[in-house]
Amino acid sequence: MPVPLVNHSEVDVLIIGAGPAGLMAANALANAGVNVRIVDKRSAMVTAGQADGISPRTIEVFQSYGIGERLLREGCQVHMAAFYNPSSTGGIERTGRAPDVTAPTARYPFELALHQGGIEAIILDSMTALGVNVERSTMPTSIELSKDEGELADPNAHPVRVTLERLDEEDGQPHPEVVHAKFVLGADGAHSWVRKMFDISMDGEQSDFIWGVVDMVPDTDFPDIRNKSLIHSNNGSCLLVPREADRIRIYMQLADKDVLNPTTGRVDKEKMGPTQLLDVAQKSIHPYKLIPTNGINWWTLYIIGQRVASNFSVKNRVFIAGDACHTHSPKAGQGMNASMNDAHNLAWKLALVIRGWADMSLLSTYESERRKYARDLIAFDKEFSTLFSGKPQTEENKDGVSHEVFLKAFQTFGGFSSGIGVHYSPSVAVADAHQSYASNLIIGERVPPHKFVRAADAWPYELQDLLPSDFRFKLLTFVGDITDASQRSKVESMVKELERPTGFLTRYSTPNTTSKTTRFDIITVGLGRKEEVDFLQYPELLRPHWSKVLIDDTDVTGSLGGQGYSYYGVGPAGAVVVVRPDGYVGAITPLERVGELDGYFDSFMKAPV
Amino acid sequence: MPVPLVNHSEVDVLIIGAGPAGLMAANALANAGVNVRIVDKRSAMVTAGQADGISPRTIEVFQSYGIGERLLREGCQVHMAAFYNPSSTGGIERTGRAPDVTAPTARYPFELALHQGGIEAIILDSMTALGVNVERSTMPTSIELSKDEGELADPNAHPVRVTLERLDEEDGQPHPEVVHAKFVLGADGAHSWVRKMFDISMDGEQSDFIWGVVDMVPDTDFPDIRNKSLIHSNNGSCLLVPREADRIRIYMQLADKDVLNPTTGRVDKEKMGPTQLLDVAQKSIHPYKLIPTNGINWWTLYIIGQRVASNFSVKNRVFIAGDACHTHSPKAGQGMNASMNDAHNLAWKLALVIRGWADMSLLSTYESERRKYARDLIAFDKEFSTLFSGKPQTEENKDGVSHEVFLKAFQTFGGFSSGIGVHYSPSVAVADAHQSYASNLIIGERVPPHKFVRAADAWPYELQDLLPSDFRFKLLTFVGDITDASQRSKVESMVKELERPTGFLTRYSTPNTTSKTTRFDIITVGLGRKEEVDFLQYPELLRPHWSKVLIDDTDVTGSLGGQGYSYYGVGPAGAVVVVRPDGYVGAITPLERVGELDGYFDSFMKAPV
Repeated sequence: MPVPLVNHSEVDVLIIGAGPAGLMAANALANAGVNVRIVDKRSAMVTAGQADGISPRTIEVFQSYGIGERLLREGCQVHMAAFYNPSSTGGIERTGRAPDVTAPTARYPFELALHQGGIEAIILDSMTALGVNVERSTMPTSIELSKDEGELADPNAHPVRVTLERLDEEDGQPHPEVVHAKFVLGADGAHSWVRKMFDISMDGEQSDFIWGVVDMVPDTDFPDIRNKSLIHSNNGSCLLVPREADRIRIYMQLADKDVLNPTTGRVDKEKMGPTQLLDVAQKSIHPYKLIPTNGINWWTLYIIGQRVASNFSVKNRVFIAGDACHTHSPKAGQGMNASMNDAHNLAWKLALVIRGWADMSLLSTYESERRKYARDLIAFDKEFSTLFSGKPQTEENKDGVSHEVFLKAFQTFGGFSSGIGVHYSPSVAVADAHQSYASNLIIGERVPPHKFVRAADAWPYELQDLLPSDFRFKLLTFVGDITDASQRSKVESMVKELERPTGFLTRYSTPNTTSKTTRFDIITVGLGRKEEVDFLQYPELLRPHWSKVLIDDTDVTGSLGGQGYSYYGVGPAGAVVVVRPDGYVGAITPLERVGELDGYFDSFMKAPV
Repeated sequence: MPVPLVNHSEVDVLIIGAGPAGLMAANALANAGVNVRIVDKRSAMVTAGQADGISPRTIEVFQSYGIGERLLREGCQVHMAAFYNPSSTGGIERTGRAPDVTAPTARYPFELALHQGGIEAIILDSMTALGVNVERSTMPTSIELSKDEGELADPNAHPVRVTLERLDEEDGQPHPEVVHAKFVLGADGAHSWVRKMFDISMDGEQSDFIWGVVDMVPDTDFPDIRNKSLIHSNNGSCLLVPREADRIRIYMQLADKDVLNPTTGRVDKEKMGPTQLLDVAQKSIHPYKLIPTNGINWWTLYIIGQRVASNFSVKNRVFIAGDACHTHSPKAGQGMNASMNDAHNLAWKLALVIRGWADMSLLSTYESERRKYARDLIAFDKEFSTLFSGKPQTEENKDGVSHEVFLKAFQTFGGFSSGIGVHYSPSVAVADAHQSYASNLIIGERVPPHKFVRAADAWPYELQDLLPSDFRFKLLTFVGDITDASQRSKVESMVKELERPTGFLTRYSTPNTTSKTTRFDIITVGLGRKEEVDFLQYPELLRPHWSKVLIDDTDVTGSLGGQGYSYYGVGPAGAVVVVRPDGYVGAITPLERVGELDGYFDSFMKAPV
């Protein structure tokens, strides 16, 4: 028998698992020009079912990677939520409707429904165009992290060794490959192998919930069949979500006794299959009819607990993301969104460290930011689930959950479930100071959308579109009205301060070039009227290109933009706002104290060598 | 010597010339499933320069074929116009700025600049996806129209014989092909061979104007370099247009003496080339500097007269479109727009006749609608050109053109130059009656954009996007508030009237099916609130699919839509509006007189046999 040949290779980042979290990370890293590989043990991508709800913030994130338009074109928008409760005549009746999204600053005030395969295809096509493909039928068999502290501290070292085996070798023999990686990301799902290999525990309640899901194209007289319907019936609660191509999905929480085999304690598919699930759905929606027109397109049962991993990283060399580090109920449609946003949070930090722009310590903010979020998510999920699964208030059950209480909770949690309200606490990447200079650009939160017009051509632009996830920090300089002599003099002083040889802008610029825009993109927002403004009057540092100067005015029709300073809470004296590569506000200073940004960047950035 | 083998073939439509008009026609016909071929004697498409301004209406038309998004992504938007006049200190100074587009109902309130090759590529890619390619290096050598009246009257006959020869045969021998076509479209430019073969005269003034054009990426201190600038200088008038990739284009009208050889009367390239053109531009823009950063990217001189063909068709079998039937100055940027809209106007009529849905007489409306437009365009061009080329008003020349007079003309003509105000006169396809029932849906004009929300899911939709150029007539049924008993009864009567066996909807439906949506797409717009509306309450005829019922309300954020009845001038009693396949209003009736639409459709439509 021949001795198997072992190949060795090196890579900057190895991603294990090509679900939403892994793909999002691979695409983001490919976008940043990082040497990345992604493997998955499955031989093909999912084609139907599975997670499918995209929150408003996730749409913004897709847009920041240039893949938002396709997502919007292919997805089904959910604008309205309908609430149903038991009627006095039996069955259910509508208690009211309300916007599905309660987040006043959402750029996309709706959720998007698209099957997981459709979402993954969008990311895959983007990755492929960047030269990265998923290596399928490939699974890791061992993972080892160096114990050498010197190696662990050296960003150029490859301290993680992962053995990979292909499951479809033509000769049937294993041909293991040992990959030496700088960093490994375990995005390998709720039963994460990476997590288990490093003995990371999942903390949380041990009780699990059982969910049933069916997809169908219905024949129905239910008037909210194209709205998200949250149904409290005396037969149990269920959640109906409209989807693309006339399909709908119904989620039902099931009782243990209806699903589990009492002897084995495991799911008994004899007790609960598509026929029984349809029966549950039909009883819950009575008196309305619900008849699948071409059968049940997809169905599943799943058991899930509400848990968070005790750690999201091992020595900032191995990370876990997505279901690998947090599991929760599908009710708020957060699982896939949380997963993709984990990846979005981690990717730019890895890219900056690998490029030698940032210190390894920046990576610690991944766990501090995303683990806190995951814990908040579970707290939200528990509270919301309790209300949703609770018995409805009826004549007989006056202690039940009333529509008013449920609606209030639904709307209160809107900022959270939309992803818009995610807030990162102070850290090396979030400097908590001078908030009052831009009171609605909340430090630690994403920049809300607003339209401004370009000074040079009055073309209205969404500011978010000028903050792409391109791994640069954006310096939003709100300079006020530079035709005012005293303001102009303040702006000129700020420019001098920014141009100091010892200032961050000079020290962290690419050596041997005059370019200040490799790591920093300067976007200037002035006060002025489009009929009068002259973009050439702005100091040259503030207009590296003519397109970089905006003014706070409406477009020529008067219908887009305007009042942006006021919307962002910036006064006429202006402010400088640092936006992180992921679109979150990192720091704010008044013009006079722009020198304080040296401290912000010095805390994690490394000068070119 | 071998006898050349002559191949014979048949085709429904043969298009000669693959410029904007020809491509637009080919794509539209391919979209309609028509058997179409398009040939061009050039071996490759244009890659730079040439026409490049797309008007607001043309963007809407692209959108109606599903190719608007790419156009918007690739083009450079021009929102603002700047006006320059001689300053008292020499050179020019800005007199003012104004919106580039003056057309309050424009969906896209800007012009788009994109080089002709970029525009053509968008149409070509769409055609290719539909299976139609341009046959290049192919020129017609003869064309003959049958004189047999019976053949000419038979829509299934192929009375046009065109001989085609390929210019790049490998054996160097001619291999002529005789194409027998039902219809031929000559879209072969200002020197149209098709036009000449049928002795169609060009009417208009014999005087020609000489234009010079240069493209460059400038180094400049001209503050309106990214706006459209209309410059009256004592050195002559010029027009500066911003373009994609930091480029600009400058159009200059030249004096005969500077360009023509006095002996031959022809353009003398020794007298006027890129160096001289740049010199003219630099003098006209003084005191601002204008230095090409990487040379002149493209330049041209052209001589053009303002003329219209005496006929746009020969017996409704051979048509001409675009520059083949009208030529005018580039000042208003109308040439390419007029050409593409000729094609848009003709394509659906040809498609309906070829499908056997419409009588040949419908084709006569192509000439009546587009020739009138071309004549109006030239009248506009003359008036505007005179003002633009006229000497500016100065201290020395008080009779010159003042800024106020010029700006007023610029804005007065805005409806025309935007393409929005195009108005087709009454004909078999435009029934002039009952205008008051939808006073702002002007009969003979395109449907202005407005957003409505879908009753079933509160998803805000742009009505124009529900009127695609898919060769069906759209029946917009504004039914009012159907929860009002008396209105509901009127709506039910209207439905009964529409469902009569002798009514147009039944008579012109596809035989042996119950489908009423092959030729007609029914879109219902009700009055109601999104929180309360039940789409299932609309009569079934008015909701062939759940997505076809809209209500006149805002979206969940309150920022999109609403007040649509009032915007369109429709009262609570409602109206039925027939929209032609090209997006123009064809007929209006009150609900009670919907039977009158039988007369409209009977005038050109043919029942299935």
